[in-house]
Amino acid sequence: MTEIRIAPLTVVPEAGQVLREAELAVSTDSGRITYLGPVRGPLGAGDIDGAGRLAIPGLVNAHTHSAMTLLRGYSDDVPLHTWLTHVRAFELRLTAADIQAGLRLALAEMLRNGTVAFIDMFQWDSTLLAAVSEAGMRVSAAPAVFGYDSVAFPMADPTPGSDILERTAALSAEFAGDPLIGLAYGLHAPYTCPPEMVAEVAQRSRVNGIGVHIHLSETAREVDDSLRQFGVTPIRQVADLGLLDGRVHVAHAVHPRAGDFELLGRPGVTVSHNPVSNLKLGAGIAPVGRYLSAGVRLGLGTDSVASNNTLDMFEEIKTGVLAQRGLAVDPSVISGADLFRMATAGGAPAVEPGLSGVLAVGEPADLVLLDVTGTTASPFTDPGSFLAYAARGTDVTDVFVAGRRVVAGRRVTTIDEAAARADVAERAARILAELAAG
Amino acid sequence: MTEIRIAPLTVVPEAGQVLREAELAVSTDSGRITYLGPVRGPLGAGDIDGAGRLAIPGLVNAHTHSAMTLLRGYSDDVPLHTWLTHVRAFELRLTAADIQAGLRLALAEMLRNGTVAFIDMFQWDSTLLAAVSEAGMRVSAAPAVFGYDSVAFPMADPTPGSDILERTAALSAEFAGDPLIGLAYGLHAPYTCPPEMVAEVAQRSRVNGIGVHIHLSETAREVDDSLRQFGVTPIRQVADLGLLDGRVHVAHAVHPRAGDFELLGRPGVTVSHNPVSNLKLGAGIAPVGRYLSAGVRLGLGTDSVASNNTLDMFEEIKTGVLAQRGLAVDPSVISGADLFRMATAGGAPAVEPGLSGVLAVGEPADLVLLDVTGTTASPFTDPGSFLAYAARGTDVTDVFVAGRRVVAGRRVTTIDEAAARADVAERAARILAELAAG
Repeated sequence: MTEIRIAPLTVVPEAGQVLREAELAVSTDSGRITYLGPVRGPLGAGDIDGAGRLAIPGLVNAHTHSAMTLLRGYSDDVPLHTWLTHVRAFELRLTAADIQAGLRLALAEMLRNGTVAFIDMFQWDSTLLAAVSEAGMRVSAAPAVFGYDSVAFPMADPTPGSDILERTAALSAEFAGDPLIGLAYGLHAPYTCPPEMVAEVAQRSRVNGIGVHIHLSETAREVDDSLRQFGVTPIRQVADLGLLDGRVHVAHAVHPRAGDFELLGRPGVTVSHNPVSNLKLGAGIAPVGRYLSAGVRLGLGTDSVASNNTLDMFEEIKTGVLAQRGLAVDPSVISGADLFRMATAGGAPAVEPGLSGVLAVGEPADLVLLDVTGTTASPFTDPGSFLAYAARGTDVTDVFVAGRRVVAGRRVTTIDEAAARADVAERAARILAELAAG
Repeated sequence: MTEIRIAPLTVVPEAGQVLREAELAVSTDSGRITYLGPVRGPLGAGDIDGAGRLAIPGLVNAHTHSAMTLLRGYSDDVPLHTWLTHVRAFELRLTAADIQAGLRLALAEMLRNGTVAFIDMFQWDSTLLAAVSEAGMRVSAAPAVFGYDSVAFPMADPTPGSDILERTAALSAEFAGDPLIGLAYGLHAPYTCPPEMVAEVAQRSRVNGIGVHIHLSETAREVDDSLRQFGVTPIRQVADLGLLDGRVHVAHAVHPRAGDFELLGRPGVTVSHNPVSNLKLGAGIAPVGRYLSAGVRLGLGTDSVASNNTLDMFEEIKTGVLAQRGLAVDPSVISGADLFRMATAGGAPAVEPGLSGVLAVGEPADLVLLDVTGTTASPFTDPGSFLAYAARGTDVTDVFVAGRRVVAGRRVTTIDEAAARADVAERAARILAELAAG
């Protein structure tokens, strides 16, 4: 067994816990953590000097549309309906190669900011999933459907929604042997996917065990429309269609009504809270404290860069705390540890059942090292406080996923990041020119 | 004249404007901008290659208590009254040398994050002001008073509030020849400083022209208490005492009542909006849109790291946009450019009358260069969008203040930052040990 030891360092093995002057060791064979405790002795060749470093569980981005890095800075500061129109016009121009380029840059950005796993609803095929696996990240990929006949990305893939459902199962089978890759049905939302499709996906999911990812109750208007059209909230509607009996990961849930809390607390349901996106688009502020009280399992997500405009989970943690306190006008409603837990152990099982999102012997070696010698870490009084309120993705120096060192010394080892940037810049410029030409 | 030329680069000379493939030149003699326009030709020795750089006006931190870097991570996630008790206990332990150390680290942190000027209420004396001048930053320093007899920092300085007022004028005279250093009367708040002191300071200010810095209406409780005790809001109360007839810089103003908008719109009044601090402490969200509509001159501030926990104005800009949109549940209420303007031209005249906070020929060469070749700047579709939603202090590569290059290649040239960190870490540990010992 090849074991890499990291010592001496501070470790936050999970939210609210701290080990100091510790050693952490990972097996590059099993991809698991083999030791966590006091330093066992001098390091050997190939080990990592942990001085000035803090180890944490790898961050989990519980909701994004990665390939949309191409749209960064393309449409900000406009009303929501204008933004949606802009984004859709851009997406209609995306070729398969554009989506590959956008995804590659997103993978690099997430990795260098300490994200090890993500849940993503967008265009997904074998090539794209292989790119994630080669980058060494974990994904729960949800090929997006907007209805039976709807084609999400016509330039990239003319496949209608009905066939995407078939493909989702086929991709799941194709990547069954890859521990990094998981699939989910990507139901866009109940206002785009008809009730019979929601019911069909619930049924398919029950049979084949593939989970579902869906946007629910993102805006107040969506809830109002649902109440008018169906007489129930979007959350209640999909529950009535059987969707919440299985394994379902819900994005947003900004505007729950009374009965929705219990529905989202069902055992197979997880929810991604996406504070930056919800605020930037003016969707609102999800009642995180009430969700936690109701036992709802919450992860944390960036959503796409088109509504963010970065993929830095540390920013999401801090903004998540701030938004709740702003909503409550009370600093005691939520802690930094609450949000850090959401960003790690909260989101992990939504990527893959059984994934813990904590650092412990026997668990997958999904971990991040942060430089805590910088000015924003001085004094380094409280590692938990640092993680919630002062850390940034730029503090990340090293990332391991399943024991593989995918970021080393602030450099992504699995992706040519400079090439990815240049590629995306060129493609974004082309699409912007196409859009300007009309 | 020694002129440094920077080209070719993108320039955002003020919020909402963009020049591409431009040249910017500064005089190190006059400390002013000597050229801004198309590239004039090949660079010479000593000039700066601007490729991959974005130049912006230096950021202005319109409200902070710099020396409190010592308290970073010391008290988070507690109710406001507990936090205040913790902070006060820590402050009572601060020696003069502690405050010097805390200030030095804050100066380094602000500079490396692109801040060129700040407004600060805390302990201030000749030594501390000289440290700011030597670091090459601009300050409006407001020695804090909490009443006539109150001693703010007993270990550091036994001077009571009444004498601090005298000292403020003396320091103003002492540093009159230093263009970087300005003084203001530092009235803590109307709930600590008695009405006669507010009136006296208003009178002194009218006579000697020294401005005033004061906290007003930070929390709903403060406003309620004022209404109960004085029958008027804190803003109305100090206006009735003559304070808003002069040059006054107000921190927070989170909870204005109807008549307060007009009072804060008076010609000599500026207001610092501090979104991260207001949210983190659960104070609330200031009505920025209504202030802008009412013609109130707004700057942007971090407040101290004890309620933040960093001094990164880019974070303040983004959080400022997000908080307003969360409050309004509408993305069109405020733009990134609005917040960027507050962080530059908005705060600048509150530091020093006449300071413009924009890049133009003849203006002081207070400017920041950002690296825009990184992943979060790819694609670089819209510089304004980048500044509001994707930039971080870590993107800053170079900072000039009054033509002096105080950050070069991400290194602060005027402060030994590593020594400052070590010094603060040691002092913070000592104070924490003292507090633990009781």
